Amino acid sequence: MPRFKLLIEYDGAPFAGWQVQPNAPTVQGRLEEAAAMLDAGRPSVRGAGRTDAGVHAIGQVAHVDLARDWAPERLCAALNAHLRPAPIAIRAVEPVASDFDARFSACSRIYLYRILNRRAPPALERSRVWHVARRLNGEAMHAAAQTILGKHDFTTFRSAHCQAASPEKTLDRLTVDRRGEELHIEAEARSFLHNQVRSMVGSLKLIGEGSWPPTRLRQALEARDRAACGMVAPPNGLYLVKVAY
Amino acid sequence: MPRFKLLIEYDGAPFAGWQVQPNAPTVQGRLEEAAAMLDAGRPSVRGAGRTDAGVHAIGQVAHVDLARDWAPERLCAALNAHLRPAPIAIRAVEPVASDFDARFSACSRIYLYRILNRRAPPALERSRVWHVARRLNGEAMHAAAQTILGKHDFTTFRSAHCQAASPEKTLDRLTVDRRGEELHIEAEARSFLHNQVRSMVGSLKLIGEGSWPPTRLRQALEARDRAACGMVAPPNGLYLVKVAY
Repeated sequence: MPRFKLLIEYDGAPFAGWQVQPNAPTVQGRLEEAAAMLDAGRPSVRGAGRTDAGVHAIGQVAHVDLARDWAPERLCAALNAHLRPAPIAIRAVEPVASDFDARFSACSRIYLYRILNRRAPPALERSRVWHVARRLNGEAMHAAAQTILGKHDFTTFRSAHCQAASPEKTLDRLTVDRRGEELHIEAEARSFLHNQVRSMVGSLKLIGEGSWPPTRLRQALEARDRAACGMVAPPNGLYLVKVAY
Repeated sequence: MPRFKLLIEYDGAPFAGWQVQPNAPTVQGRLEEAAAMLDAGRPSVRGAGRTDAGVHAIGQVAHVDLARDWAPERLCAALNAHLRPAPIAIRAVEPVASDFDARFSACSRIYLYRILNRRAPPALERSRVWHVARRLNGEAMHAAAQTILGKHDFTTFRSAHCQAASPEKTLDRLTVDRRGEELHIEAEARSFLHNQVRSMVGSLKLIGEGSWPPTRLRQALEARDRAACGMVAPPNGLYLVKVAY
C-alpha cells in the first residue's frame, strides 16, 4: 500500500487534542473520517506529535497508508474537501517509502509559544495566545533559557501523565524574542516530554515577571522534581511549527 | 463632560459591522452597552471608520463623552471588563479636548488587506484572510497600484450605497508585499469611500492572476463608472490598522 506524508495546519481550539478519543472531537479523528471517505479500508493517520487540547499546529506531520496510488495534489484537494468545515487544512502531500514513520523518523521538532504581553485582553488573537498583562523582561527570560540547553533529565518539566520511557531529552534551542506586543518563545529538540514546552514557558514567565530570579530555572531543572516546576502555561499559546526528517 | 479617545481592536467576524443596527450585534452597539454600565447617561460612542460586517480592526478610534472624569487606565480596564466575552478590546484610553472628533479630526487612515495565497484553505486564519488558491503576481499588482495614487474621482471603486458628498479622494499609498504565503496590501488616505479598499483589492487580484493587464487598473479609474470595477474583495481580509490625528 502506498504511504503518504501529510503536512497539516489546524486551529486546536475546538478539539480535545490530536489523539482519537471516544465521544470527543479530535484532529486525528477528523482526519481519519476524511481519509475514510476516500478509502474503504478506514486508514489510520499517525502523527508526529500528539498535541494536547487547545494546542495549534502550523506544520504537524502525519502519515497514512491508502489502498490506491494518488497524485499528491489530488489527494491533498480531496482530503481538504472532506475536512470542511473543520479548521484543519492539509498544506502538502508527498509520497514516502513504507519505512517512513511520522513519529519515529523525525529528527527534530520546533514549537512556538506566543505570549500577548499588554494590558488589554486579546480580541483578534483570542484562543491563539497566552495573555499576560504584566510587563515581562524578555531578555532575562532568554538568558535563563540558555542555562537549560543540552542533554538533561527533564523530570521537573514533565507531566505526571507522560508515557516516555526516559525523562532524558536534549534541548537544542530555547529562545525568547519580543515582537511588538508579543513574546515569541521557540523550542527545538529531537523530541519533547509531555507538557515539556508549556512547563518551561510557565517557569520562564515567572522569571520574566520577577517572581523567580533567573538562576532558578537551572536549579529547578537540577531538582529533577515535578514540584520544582513553576507553572504550566495554557495550551492556547502553543503551536507545533515544524517537524524535520 | 470629559471626552475620551478609545483605541479599539476587534474581530469583525461575529458582528454586523461597526454601526448600531436594530436586532443585529454591532461593535458600536456592544461598546455603547459597556459604556452604559459605567454612565447612566447612555453615552454614544462615535468611531473614525464605519467598518462593514466581517471587517476587523487593530486600531479603530472612537470618542465618548462621560459624566465623570476617569483615570484613563481605570476606564480602559472597566470597559474591557464589561465588553467580555465579546471579541472587542480597548487597547488604550486618552482624555481629549471637547472639539476632538474621532471621525472628522482624522488626518489619515491606514487599512491592511490580507490575502492567503496558497493551494490549501486557511485553518488557523479562517475568517481573517481572503483565500486565493491561484498564485498571484504581487510585483505586477504593486506596479499597477502605483498608477492610481493621488487625487481622483474614485467612482469606479465606490459602493452604490456610499453616502459621501463627493467621489473625490486622495490616495496617498497603496502597496502590495509578499510575506511568506500571504500578500499584504496596505492603503493610506485621509478618508476612503464606502468599499473603496475592497474594490481596489478585488481589481488588483484580477491583475495578479493575469485576468487583467496591469494597465487596466488606471483605465478602470478613469472610466469613473462602477461597472468598470473588477470585483469587490470579501470583508474578512480587511483590517482598519491605524487612524492618525
